[in-house]
Amino acid sequence: MSDPQIPASFSLGVPPGEDRERRICDQCGFIDYANPRIVTGVVAHAGGRILLCRRAIEPRKGFWTLPAGFLELGESIEEGARREAMEEARAELVIETLLGLYSIPLIGQVQIFFRARIVNDPSPGPESLEVALFGWDEVPWSELAFPSVRWALDHYRETQGQTGFTPFGNPPGTDQLKR
Amino acid sequence: MSDPQIPASFSLGVPPGEDRERRICDQCGFIDYANPRIVTGVVAHAGGRILLCRRAIEPRKGFWTLPAGFLELGESIEEGARREAMEEARAELVIETLLGLYSIPLIGQVQIFFRARIVNDPSPGPESLEVALFGWDEVPWSELAFPSVRWALDHYRETQGQTGFTPFGNPPGTDQLKR
Repeated sequence: MSDPQIPASFSLGVPPGEDRERRICDQCGFIDYANPRIVTGVVAHAGGRILLCRRAIEPRKGFWTLPAGFLELGESIEEGARREAMEEARAELVIETLLGLYSIPLIGQVQIFFRARIVNDPSPGPESLEVALFGWDEVPWSELAFPSVRWALDHYRETQGQTGFTPFGNPPGTDQLKR
Repeated sequence: MSDPQIPASFSLGVPPGEDRERRICDQCGFIDYANPRIVTGVVAHAGGRILLCRRAIEPRKGFWTLPAGFLELGESIEEGARREAMEEARAELVIETLLGLYSIPLIGQVQIFFRARIVNDPSPGPESLEVALFGWDEVPWSELAFPSVRWALDHYRETQGQTGFTPFGNPPGTDQLKR
């Protein structure tokens, strides 16, 4: 079965001195050390309401999400979260506390969410159809883009106004979803 | 200036629809999405003493470190921490709490440390010359392998016996070390 994500020139093999299969380029010997990637994001609030973005891109185009995205080389996790909030919602943030740390082995991700305060007026960036601030009872629960959006919102609600708590991990059972 | 880590067939370029340079293979078009990698590790204790491993491999061969290593695809961060402790010190652990979350942009890493209790008798794995349990005053401070080993040990000491605290981030200033 061929995976369209894997160029034809890659084969699986165990590099010398290692104990694990990696993708190795048949032409130049390049070893593709694929590791889980970090998604960094925020539950950002202003006036007691929470910032959500309606996605302009796949996956889950048209659904609502929290500002979040892949951490890039050269930035801290807090810097990455602030960059994503700026890119997706033109939101300037003051980060308040670490909220959650979720492992999603099924898709090779670790997601890290902060709680943050918004200090300007958000507006949609190119990856968002619209952005809006929602009171808890106004959140479009049936139109959320990803399960972890719900997890982070629930953990925000549970600790609203608090500091000095241990960040949440996965809800029970959800760290066992394997490829 | 050529980087021996980069095979000759890679060039830097901005993929269509993106805003950031990536390494692209000249021969097959493979895009190498390099993102920060996750190191997962533990400050593991038994009888009030802390487990350290003397490294049998470079970098920092011969120096003392905490059990830690790269998170692999298909595992949660807690599973990765337990695997590393087993590989490096044959240590079986019960993870107690999240201790620290450090960004090290200079080397493209996010390091996540847990506090854990050891439930067997550790012994050296193939990557360790020796393993030992140290009281706080016995720790070989001048022979620690990496700065983050010191950070995690200090944060362990500061919260010994506590739960329900917010994990530590970087010590002041250390998240600004850029490539």
